[in-house]
Amino acid sequence: MDDPRSTPGVHMAAEIREQPRVLENILRHESREIRSVAATIGARKPRFILLAGRGTSDHAALYAKYLIETRLGLPAGLVSPSTITLYGSSPDLTDVLFVGVSQSGSSPDLIEPMEQARRCGAITLAVTNAPRSPLAQAAELHLCVAAGDERAIAATKTYTAQLMVLFLLVEALANRMGDEAAQIPDEVAQVLEMDGVIAHEAVRYRFAEQIVITSRGYNYPTAREAALKLMETSSLIAHAFSSADLLHGPMAVIEKGFPVIAIAPEGRVSIALGLVLEQLEVLGADTLVVGAPGGQFQGTRRLPLPHLADECVSPIVAIIPLQMLAWHLARERGVDPDEPRGLSKITKTR
Amino acid sequence: MDDPRSTPGVHMAAEIREQPRVLENILRHESREIRSVAATIGARKPRFILLAGRGTSDHAALYAKYLIETRLGLPAGLVSPSTITLYGSSPDLTDVLFVGVSQSGSSPDLIEPMEQARRCGAITLAVTNAPRSPLAQAAELHLCVAAGDERAIAATKTYTAQLMVLFLLVEALANRMGDEAAQIPDEVAQVLEMDGVIAHEAVRYRFAEQIVITSRGYNYPTAREAALKLMETSSLIAHAFSSADLLHGPMAVIEKGFPVIAIAPEGRVSIALGLVLEQLEVLGADTLVVGAPGGQFQGTRRLPLPHLADECVSPIVAIIPLQMLAWHLARERGVDPDEPRGLSKITKTR
Repeated sequence: MDDPRSTPGVHMAAEIREQPRVLENILRHESREIRSVAATIGARKPRFILLAGRGTSDHAALYAKYLIETRLGLPAGLVSPSTITLYGSSPDLTDVLFVGVSQSGSSPDLIEPMEQARRCGAITLAVTNAPRSPLAQAAELHLCVAAGDERAIAATKTYTAQLMVLFLLVEALANRMGDEAAQIPDEVAQVLEMDGVIAHEAVRYRFAEQIVITSRGYNYPTAREAALKLMETSSLIAHAFSSADLLHGPMAVIEKGFPVIAIAPEGRVSIALGLVLEQLEVLGADTLVVGAPGGQFQGTRRLPLPHLADECVSPIVAIIPLQMLAWHLARERGVDPDEPRGLSKITKTR
Repeated sequence: MDDPRSTPGVHMAAEIREQPRVLENILRHESREIRSVAATIGARKPRFILLAGRGTSDHAALYAKYLIETRLGLPAGLVSPSTITLYGSSPDLTDVLFVGVSQSGSSPDLIEPMEQARRCGAITLAVTNAPRSPLAQAAELHLCVAAGDERAIAATKTYTAQLMVLFLLVEALANRMGDEAAQIPDEVAQVLEMDGVIAHEAVRYRFAEQIVITSRGYNYPTAREAALKLMETSSLIAHAFSSADLLHGPMAVIEKGFPVIAIAPEGRVSIALGLVLEQLEVLGADTLVVGAPGGQFQGTRRLPLPHLADECVSPIVAIIPLQMLAWHLARERGVDPDEPRGLSKITKTR
């Protein structure tokens, strides 16, 4: 991502590069506010947590759902905003924490569920990059992801900032300090050093028409976010599957030479992906493994990830090479990553 | 689907045709058992409902989630089985109803979460087509979807049977009789009469390499199930998006002539899909609308659905033409719909 000032994709490149600084800033300056909000929530002893988001923010919400289930031990669910915006339901939300995640805080199909959740008795929290936004104002509590202005349409730094804030929030709710995240800014910076290798990978996909991206557990949201980045920036039809779902049917579309990216950082996920990678090898798929060095997979090619303190924080790092891949591939295809076709920054669905 | 005995896809065709009888049978003979199970659950006053399923059964679980939120007024969430099977979490599930949905009742990645949910204090219910299966035995309560043996690998009659049983269960929990479903068997039979029209539609997709399927609300699960059927049977890369998510990025992949199927039965969904259909028209997409007669859309082509008592039961009918399309398209492509590549009936993921 050289000399961004003179090239298409200047904003997205700058925002990808900003991530170590944004994440470091959250660790240094937002942790106290996160712990304070967690204390307010904890005092009200929520029994269930509902999360809502759209697009990239939905992937951050999904990551938070995994963290809540595994590290906080509370049941959690992703809200279907349409049950409120289309069908006007009024569930009983006493003892429920309702978390709305949105970069802009302006999507009407989150504001209405947030207002409704508050009327229905939920503790409401907005996690946005826009403290004065309608979503932030609709919620009782607010956390800012403090990523600064995001000018590219494809969200990058606001996504990793959301992941970091949600990780620290869940850890604070569980009365832990979130030390697993301490090295994340440095690890993200290490991945940014792989720019040349990733640019080279992108060339291979110049004429690909579709791709499957798979992972599991904490990194299933990474697979979905990577697929969205590739679709947004380079019009590649990218399909994300959890490795378990892939075996339940979609495996039938994989034929010899079909491009697949498997996201397999160190940890349980890499064991769980073994069966899928074996089958992909038998089918002759063109597989790229984004994962820990020294893993046991026979992937055709691999992009290594740094060694991380714990699998639970790996999504904050694992998405970086895929953001970079999407950026390079868009440019290979003659698309300006900052100006994908037919998209605008705030999506006004209801 | 003529003379199935002599053609590839004999089982899937027979099972598609059996659906009016299967659904009628549930209405006549399973309603009492469903109300009895609902009474047992209702007496324990669950506050939150968690659902788990994989593949087709995950789509049935998603439909149930919408029903629970809109018609029962309880918060609901889809379980991520990997949080239990990979990461071994033990959430506090007091006051929680945990519903596992599975055709075979044999998938290990549902049995383990079901056992764990029971240990964690949940009221547990298995909804299967196999009363003696390990999943049915692992749960405290069981409902049989009574669809009879399913021999095709692509699930059809067990899916609509799951939808019907889950609809009647939610209505019983809400102290209603589920009268909206009374005409469903006849309406499904009407759709089966459209076989010639659907066979003709299938020809058009002979060389399609990918397709986007979109809907919203109650029929978002229909879009996902339709995509899975097309992938399973005819190796067409089919991508399902809620119409709201489609506007958040993936719209960038739609170009002139790109095939899109929009599922828009009468009701709120058809209003919500208006904006997407407008944009698809501007982009010059090749759009097929599966929907109510006399809708307001300028879709390129349409497959009408019968007039239904209520949008909330429309998914049981709206999937039928898409099952038929998948069957015909597989045969157009020289694939036996009963024997898709690389798939087996019970998927043993963990």
